[in-house]
Amino acid sequence: MSGFPKFVEFREEGPREGFQIEKEIYPIEQRVAFIDLLSKTGLTRIQVGSFVSPKYVPQMADTAELFKRIKRQPGVEYTALWLNEKGFDNALSAKDVHIDARLLFYASDAFSRHNNNCSATEMRERQRDWITLYNKHGFQVESAYVMAAFGCNFEGEIPRTRVLEDFRWIVGLCEETETPVPNLMVADTMGWGTPETVKRMIDGVREVAPEARIGMHLHDTRGLGIANLYAALSMGVDLFESSVAGLGGCPFAGHGHARAAGNVCTEDAIFLCHELGIETGIDLEALIAAARNAEKIIGSPLMGRVMHSGGLGKFRTATA
Amino acid sequence: MSGFPKFVEFREEGPREGFQIEKEIYPIEQRVAFIDLLSKTGLTRIQVGSFVSPKYVPQMADTAELFKRIKRQPGVEYTALWLNEKGFDNALSAKDVHIDARLLFYASDAFSRHNNNCSATEMRERQRDWITLYNKHGFQVESAYVMAAFGCNFEGEIPRTRVLEDFRWIVGLCEETETPVPNLMVADTMGWGTPETVKRMIDGVREVAPEARIGMHLHDTRGLGIANLYAALSMGVDLFESSVAGLGGCPFAGHGHARAAGNVCTEDAIFLCHELGIETGIDLEALIAAARNAEKIIGSPLMGRVMHSGGLGKFRTATA
Repeated sequence: MSGFPKFVEFREEGPREGFQIEKEIYPIEQRVAFIDLLSKTGLTRIQVGSFVSPKYVPQMADTAELFKRIKRQPGVEYTALWLNEKGFDNALSAKDVHIDARLLFYASDAFSRHNNNCSATEMRERQRDWITLYNKHGFQVESAYVMAAFGCNFEGEIPRTRVLEDFRWIVGLCEETETPVPNLMVADTMGWGTPETVKRMIDGVREVAPEARIGMHLHDTRGLGIANLYAALSMGVDLFESSVAGLGGCPFAGHGHARAAGNVCTEDAIFLCHELGIETGIDLEALIAAARNAEKIIGSPLMGRVMHSGGLGKFRTATA
Repeated sequence: MSGFPKFVEFREEGPREGFQIEKEIYPIEQRVAFIDLLSKTGLTRIQVGSFVSPKYVPQMADTAELFKRIKRQPGVEYTALWLNEKGFDNALSAKDVHIDARLLFYASDAFSRHNNNCSATEMRERQRDWITLYNKHGFQVESAYVMAAFGCNFEGEIPRTRVLEDFRWIVGLCEETETPVPNLMVADTMGWGTPETVKRMIDGVREVAPEARIGMHLHDTRGLGIANLYAALSMGVDLFESSVAGLGGCPFAGHGHARAAGNVCTEDAIFLCHELGIETGIDLEALIAAARNAEKIIGSPLMGRVMHSGGLGKFRTATA
């Protein structure tokens, strides 16, 4: 299954990725207005915030309040991140959070300790409990993530075999429990991937689980985000997590430089897809408007390209 | 001839591209120091400035002075841009300008009028005179550029056949005059190219001139610069023009937004090459230092990624 897909789904993480990394806590009205703009772009899933410790991530402390205030659009799922049971409980009790039951694996032990305060092996074992917990609440696992899948700022190169082992573990468990294999999400959390390693990884994941849907969570830390996305598209991957305006970057990823680029930029990726003739269901101009709104809120230039240059629509119309 | 090349040559255009677009004229000492940093990175060609009308591009008025002041390193060619005979004369009379005799073609008539004050057809006819002029001064044509090769903000889509016609014209002329075919340079001046159109274009140019060296001048206007460069690399292209820190963008390209991204970023491209195992002869860390110096001069965040995140060397060493 290679060759470009006909339709690609983008899941928007900007509201969480973007604001968790900023020192400042921006007024909730502004963040609500930003999410409301995103709701009208054609995006079908928006990650609103995260239910994590306000001690470590005070920027996300009012996530429950965000869920109360946003204007929901039909067809849009509003999700949140959690990293432990307490966070999950908070998500359950907040207003209409779409629960995208997920499993999290760390390909890097050191990053697991930084981000989740436990070893990667312990984290893997905990996933059994998560499955039980999800099932207890009536949710089937939707996605399984392997983070730092290409390399880690704390641990260096990550062997591909280690990533594939985690995916194999999932597939085995699904066979055991006769449940469908979830989306297998390859996360290049710290921007170590290249188009070539991305292609080899997708090949590997396909061997482990030929029928599974593969998704990617890409960062543009070293400028290869869109090239990596293109490589994944060329392999038929049709599911991406991204951030409008290129917002984000993990606060605990150890880049040591505040201006390091964050997630792959949604509107730049959408522009690429549309230019390749791939449908996304997303209105590029509306997305550009949302990106510019984010830049206005944050008050300094964001990393997206198309948000500054504009798309090609106006030039084509003017000259048609 | 597809598959990655073993060695790729990068020609640096940052000093010209970067400063011509800024409103401010930065102190010449700072620009000299910046070029001196670039000279120590392993780059073998640096475009120092341009001999164009100071009325239209006052930022380049002291190019001759720059050539006097820079500290030249052995093995580095210091070049300049010119668009007419007067500019060429100025280049000849300035101190030790490496004359990279070039021919310029516009795939877009409207852009030709904006950038060169004549039609694309007239521009093509003028190239005969340029060849004569170069030969008179003892130079053989080194490179032939087709600009706006993928699309034009003034004219819209550019058919590939039009670009190939210009290259065919060159090849015909070389046969006639029994001179070697120059480097055929495909310039995506306004950032309309995609990895797919890049690949098709290279295929086309190879058909026109199977033995010619193909080069690309890429812009990152809509975020596809590195993906396009990757596509070209995968086709065996081994010559690129780029700008450190992603400096630049053409002041007459009609993007209408000052913050639109400029040329494809040299150090991000070098990072990609090295990660793919392609040699460039360039010291990435030295280049990052030069990029950061440019950001300091300009005083606002530049678009490069690796200059902010750093490369992977330190993480690999720390964890080896």
